[in-house]
Amino acid sequence: MRKIEHIGIAVSNLNETAKIYEKLFGAPAYKEEEVASEGVKTAFFSSGPNKIELLEATNPESPIAKFIAKKGEGIHHIAFDVEDIFSEVNRLKNEGFIVLNETPKKGADNKLVVFLHPKSTNGVLIELCQEIK
Amino acid sequence: MRKIEHIGIAVSNLNETAKIYEKLFGAPAYKEEEVASEGVKTAFFSSGPNKIELLEATNPESPIAKFIAKKGEGIHHIAFDVEDIFSEVNRLKNEGFIVLNETPKKGADNKLVVFLHPKSTNGVLIELCQEIK
Repeated sequence: MRKIEHIGIAVSNLNETAKIYEKLFGAPAYKEEEVASEGVKTAFFSSGPNKIELLEATNPESPIAKFIAKKGEGIHHIAFDVEDIFSEVNRLKNEGFIVLNETPKKGADNKLVVFLHPKSTNGVLIELCQEIK
Repeated sequence: MRKIEHIGIAVSNLNETAKIYEKLFGAPAYKEEEVASEGVKTAFFSSGPNKIELLEATNPESPIAKFIAKKGEGIHHIAFDVEDIFSEVNRLKNEGFIVLNETPKKGADNKLVVFLHPKSTNGVLIELCQEIK
């Protein structure tokens, strides 16, 4: 857990919300990207070593659509940067955490990602991510 | 907005949830602190340049008690580190953001803090914080 890599925020309208974050940070999104496998389009903003990822669902089955239907727009997950995602997943499983995907999968922004089940983290969705070199 | 200073997470039982985060980070909280004016007790964990702040309400009128009653336990706010909180508040007000407290107040972990109204940030509670020197 070398740092908070990003915070993911579920939004209904990416373009409209991006305008707010552009004002907040005084700079536009440095990247927009669609992740078809997750049913989301994303926009990334920089804050020093950290990022904010806005996520809009691209279909009703997207985890983001389901989250907004249940809880409304808002903070969806915290992603931590790890050096070796495979060893970190093993360490956390041994500590009793439940892993949502055993095998790291390709996420947005050139990352391998694994999610921990919120059941094992007191309700917070936590992502581990490692940059693909 | 030099970095994400911390993420605040509302919890019902600080001691129990701290055990989970201790396993997650492989290290215990580096600080526990009560902020009587906010009706919270807190525990801070380090992740490189960033922190996780767990917050438990100490009375039913605490913003954390109200948050949990309405939304359940979970991520409560994002705090950004700023160099000059007074000028940043002015800049953001000029951009149309609504400030919850005009005058920076003393928060946990030796910080001056200002909160932005979630109405103006698409539902996300954002804190600005500057270290007190």
